[in-house]
Amino acid sequence: MTIIFYDIPSTLPENAWSLNTWKVRYCLNYKGIAYRTEWVEYPDIESHCKKLGIKPTDKRDDGSDEYTLPAIHDPSTGVYLAESILIADYLDKTYPDTPPVLPAHTLGLQVAFVEAFGNSLKGLAGFILPNVCSALNPPSMQYFRRTREAAFGKKLEDLVPQGETAVQKWATFKESLGKADSWYATMDSKLEGELKNTQFLMGDTLSFADINIAGYLIWLRIVWGEDNERWQEMLTWHGGRWKGLMEKLKKYETVV
Amino acid sequence: MTIIFYDIPSTLPENAWSLNTWKVRYCLNYKGIAYRTEWVEYPDIESHCKKLGIKPTDKRDDGSDEYTLPAIHDPSTGVYLAESILIADYLDKTYPDTPPVLPAHTLGLQVAFVEAFGNSLKGLAGFILPNVCSALNPPSMQYFRRTREAAFGKKLEDLVPQGETAVQKWATFKESLGKADSWYATMDSKLEGELKNTQFLMGDTLSFADINIAGYLIWLRIVWGEDNERWQEMLTWHGGRWKGLMEKLKKYETVV
Repeated sequence: MTIIFYDIPSTLPENAWSLNTWKVRYCLNYKGIAYRTEWVEYPDIESHCKKLGIKPTDKRDDGSDEYTLPAIHDPSTGVYLAESILIADYLDKTYPDTPPVLPAHTLGLQVAFVEAFGNSLKGLAGFILPNVCSALNPPSMQYFRRTREAAFGKKLEDLVPQGETAVQKWATFKESLGKADSWYATMDSKLEGELKNTQFLMGDTLSFADINIAGYLIWLRIVWGEDNERWQEMLTWHGGRWKGLMEKLKKYETVV
Repeated sequence: MTIIFYDIPSTLPENAWSLNTWKVRYCLNYKGIAYRTEWVEYPDIESHCKKLGIKPTDKRDDGSDEYTLPAIHDPSTGVYLAESILIADYLDKTYPDTPPVLPAHTLGLQVAFVEAFGNSLKGLAGFILPNVCSALNPPSMQYFRRTREAAFGKKLEDLVPQGETAVQKWATFKESLGKADSWYATMDSKLEGELKNTQFLMGDTLSFADINIAGYLIWLRIVWGEDNERWQEMLTWHGGRWKGLMEKLKKYETVV
């Protein structure tokens, strides 16, 4: 049976843009599991999840439940589930004949990795959130602006760094991505010849850690656009690490 | 042949106290590799490493090389090596018949884990660094005080939180350790019955991630002393997670 994958739409040609939902799409495509996407606008996510019995994934500062996408429904098991790495774990367990994205009992390590990577990214928000907002359909756009401006305490447009601040924030982002590059580099150093610099974080095995990073990268590429000069610059960073990762995952970019 | 393991001595009954050197001792004991410890006081570490050709592990803020322990010398290969996780990787590769601490190509993930865990620990320094200083031999004590007071910009004694600040910092530390507990909990949720809550971050396989955390725990236990009320309180935290981890690693605590 076909899994139903809940994602957030946009006005962009790819429709799909969200970094977190992209992680699940990469997993589904990599595993070759049949699915179709149902598109849910931001203001409808909470009621959608409550109606289907999909649990909240977080608490807001005021203590109320927060509902987020990605989520899936698997008609073959009756399961409704949110949160990208939990969905990945569910897919690994339920479809053991597909390639695992959390191999060798690494779920706990991969959860820690996702947090380490997310926390290590500094300086990026102002460069991308205003573009995300502009790419959404009107109902989601209004919702996104209202919630993000409340969170940051300023207009989205005022988040965009200018002049010397922009130079510094961009350098900080590059440096923080360099930290992730160093995690790959410790694996590079174990490998010889051609494999070197062409592999995944777990060597020659793709895993959720790579997909997690690719989620960020494809988010930037789609929201900024392929020709954006910051994106083009990023492709040259860290010995082409991120360019190479995107090329390796290109075959799992299909939106269905 | 017997590996030589370079560690920093103290006035405490166990002699060994350093969280980072303990990680390597746990690895050596777990693997059952023959070794003996050579004790190097803090002010001698740089000259010791330079003399033996052990590379620096970091840069100081002023750009100069920083040399740290743990380090090892393996007479059977001629290798001299510093940094706990690199030593772990070397031991895994050089002694493939011993149980791996970086199983299933997880070096890159484990490096990220070590950083995530270290960065997630907030509020602890003031509770422990003055005790560390008091536990050292005079040459190391003077060195430790001078370098740490320069780094923090205040007397070690003034780092110790007082009154309400102490309550808050201790709660912050508990909360940050709770983050690591949640990484274990995602694995717990995969397990059934007796295994649940008795396992390691990679399920039933001990790995460097657990040893990394145990390094922090044994550091606190030894430097504070077993009867310290903060230590006794920590043993009750997070469903006994840390008490259980220490019990499972107790057989690898031998100092030789």
